[in-house]
Amino acid sequence: MAIEKFSLQTARDLDQIDPLAAVRERFQLPDDVVYLDGNSLGPLPRSTPIVLDNVIQREWGQDLIRSWNDNDWIGSPQRIGGKIARLLVPDPTKAPAEDVIVSDSVSVNLFKLLTALVRRFPDRKTILSESHNFPTDVHVAQGVADAFGLSLQLVSRDEIVDHLDREVAVLLLTHVHYRTGQRYDMAAVNAAAATVDVPVLWDLSHSIGAVPLDLSAAGTQFAVGCGYKFLNGGPGAPGFVYVESSQQDCLRPLLQGWLGHNSPFGFEDEYQPAAGLRRFLVGTPPILSLLALESGLDVTNDVDREELWEKSCRLFDFFCGAVRQECSEMMILTPEVPADRGSQVSLMHPHAWPINNALIERGIIGDFRSPNVLRFGLTPLYTRYEEIWQAVTGLSEILKTEEWKRPDFSRDTLVT
Amino acid sequence: MAIEKFSLQTARDLDQIDPLAAVRERFQLPDDVVYLDGNSLGPLPRSTPIVLDNVIQREWGQDLIRSWNDNDWIGSPQRIGGKIARLLVPDPTKAPAEDVIVSDSVSVNLFKLLTALVRRFPDRKTILSESHNFPTDVHVAQGVADAFGLSLQLVSRDEIVDHLDREVAVLLLTHVHYRTGQRYDMAAVNAAAATVDVPVLWDLSHSIGAVPLDLSAAGTQFAVGCGYKFLNGGPGAPGFVYVESSQQDCLRPLLQGWLGHNSPFGFEDEYQPAAGLRRFLVGTPPILSLLALESGLDVTNDVDREELWEKSCRLFDFFCGAVRQECSEMMILTPEVPADRGSQVSLMHPHAWPINNALIERGIIGDFRSPNVLRFGLTPLYTRYEEIWQAVTGLSEILKTEEWKRPDFSRDTLVT
Repeated sequence: MAIEKFSLQTARDLDQIDPLAAVRERFQLPDDVVYLDGNSLGPLPRSTPIVLDNVIQREWGQDLIRSWNDNDWIGSPQRIGGKIARLLVPDPTKAPAEDVIVSDSVSVNLFKLLTALVRRFPDRKTILSESHNFPTDVHVAQGVADAFGLSLQLVSRDEIVDHLDREVAVLLLTHVHYRTGQRYDMAAVNAAAATVDVPVLWDLSHSIGAVPLDLSAAGTQFAVGCGYKFLNGGPGAPGFVYVESSQQDCLRPLLQGWLGHNSPFGFEDEYQPAAGLRRFLVGTPPILSLLALESGLDVTNDVDREELWEKSCRLFDFFCGAVRQECSEMMILTPEVPADRGSQVSLMHPHAWPINNALIERGIIGDFRSPNVLRFGLTPLYTRYEEIWQAVTGLSEILKTEEWKRPDFSRDTLVT
Repeated sequence: MAIEKFSLQTARDLDQIDPLAAVRERFQLPDDVVYLDGNSLGPLPRSTPIVLDNVIQREWGQDLIRSWNDNDWIGSPQRIGGKIARLLVPDPTKAPAEDVIVSDSVSVNLFKLLTALVRRFPDRKTILSESHNFPTDVHVAQGVADAFGLSLQLVSRDEIVDHLDREVAVLLLTHVHYRTGQRYDMAAVNAAAATVDVPVLWDLSHSIGAVPLDLSAAGTQFAVGCGYKFLNGGPGAPGFVYVESSQQDCLRPLLQGWLGHNSPFGFEDEYQPAAGLRRFLVGTPPILSLLALESGLDVTNDVDREELWEKSCRLFDFFCGAVRQECSEMMILTPEVPADRGSQVSLMHPHAWPINNALIERGIIGDFRSPNVLRFGLTPLYTRYEEIWQAVTGLSEILKTEEWKRPDFSRDTLVT
């Protein structure tokens, strides 16, 4: 619906008719906070303390070592991977559960796929990525490039396709940009890369659980992503690896550990990679963090993905409309065309740092990204329109009253 | 004391005078089990569910993203590393807290140090290790050797020193062998390696929390270890990295991620390794698993290390004496000289696999290691002499009655 005048009442009206309103009850959110940072750390699902209490008290405390078999701890990287697969490809016949495993951090998973791809094309000269991609992506790629005598080429977003040629061993891109919220046209990039036979590795950290994905239709063969943002898996939840079926057995891991061995309990000196994606497991997985991720994922998997995205779009339109009405000096950095963005709004302001601290003091929690960006996650599972209104009017007051000039708001504290 | 006849009564007498008897109360152990597998998965400390409930409900649920600062999640790899440092070097002036960080799995940590060491000696030709070392150590080393054009040389334990020369980029050894329980003379190996300038990387997975360590006195510069065995950190708890202070800034990580950056929240494209050990952090750590480890570690750090080892030795002597008395057909594989072993007893028997399954059915939980080893962890924090007696007499009955021949005990199930 077109909104002429944004107000608390319009926000409440939208909450009234929100088909996802009840899903918020599945999360435990503090009353005194407007939480718009679920793109950095998703909140606690109400089911998770119950799940973890069972894992801790019964599975670990009572069943002890037997849980590796009896409670299928050993199969959890694949089982949870299968649940993530449902969010990557809507048609399960197109991306079977076996195409995803959960393990390690996003950074380590990037390393696994980058090294495997670089070694597959030993004559190629460069790793191509976007300048100002998420730092860890660039750092991991730089490490791999240095080790294997390649150069890391970082170019701006609109120059990527022009730099694709047969010298490129791998193109590494983050689908939705962490700072701006810009989204690539995944299918178009894949198609351009395919003409020169360049594999594309997608970082889906800001996409999974946030925007509709169909990796199969887009022709994506390689991806990694994050469990602790839109999947609500808990702080530092493990990440995942996706490799399209036909490619799995072509990739030899450099980081080869015992759980990726074909016969991990044969205790053999000789490494034989497991068939399929299990070869990308390395050490023993952090079970508590892994099973917390599964609990968060189950909430998302209970909700219709299209409804989720529709609400994200409505939240975005409400946020931007209210910003234009209430604080017109803020510049909206995130593209307004839905297909061009993720599930966040980024605002630019020269004093973004103290403004963000002033917002936090009011209990309005988004985050700051260097040098001048205020970032707000739109998380349709639990965000209310009324909260968006509170955030925008809070921001407006901070600007009008110049509250952000309070000296302590310029303090230099680590933010995440 | 010298025991002439091993019996339930002698076991109970020893429990009566055990100075560590009360520590068992700090663990939640099931009543129907004799748990001798704490060298594979330590049991649940009673404090851990309380710690984790606070982490989950308050830190994650209420404080949300602010916990990275307000509850020092961001500092936890170093803080918990500092607690591990106390177990590695008794004199804190000799190994400051900053010499250890907790992160990732043992396998990934092995990879970090192996790649850094191999690249420091680019002209050297081999990685040297022990044949039948723990598989992940060998697999990781093989992956690194293949990638950098080195050969992995695996030789038997007594041939290690003879193979040390200036062609060796790194010697990788597990201090206490997972299968046999044999322990290296760490200082002697370090000294031999130093004569030809070979760095030694020690895997302390079966040593930390199990045997007295003094890495400083032994001249150890590089080590990794495990959090889920004798440290009782929970299933798949993160591992740790130790690097002696003078060596930290000489090592350039290959696996370089954002949390190892000098300024992780500067979001710069250019990677600048952090000073000191923080450069070996990679991605966002799994906080739930990490803080469970801290809780387990706190129990060990409350106990005198010498008392712990003395009880381990007494448990060992009782176990072996009772085995010789009650089941003389079992061969004791673990060296009986205390300095030559860890905190476990390994027994050899051609039918170890069905015997272990028969023990498990009786609630006596050790484990099997291919091809013919029964392995029992001695964990003085909570193991009672009476339990050792139950285990040995259970084993004796299984052998005498040939109970192990029951067909289902030969079934091929995954064990860990």
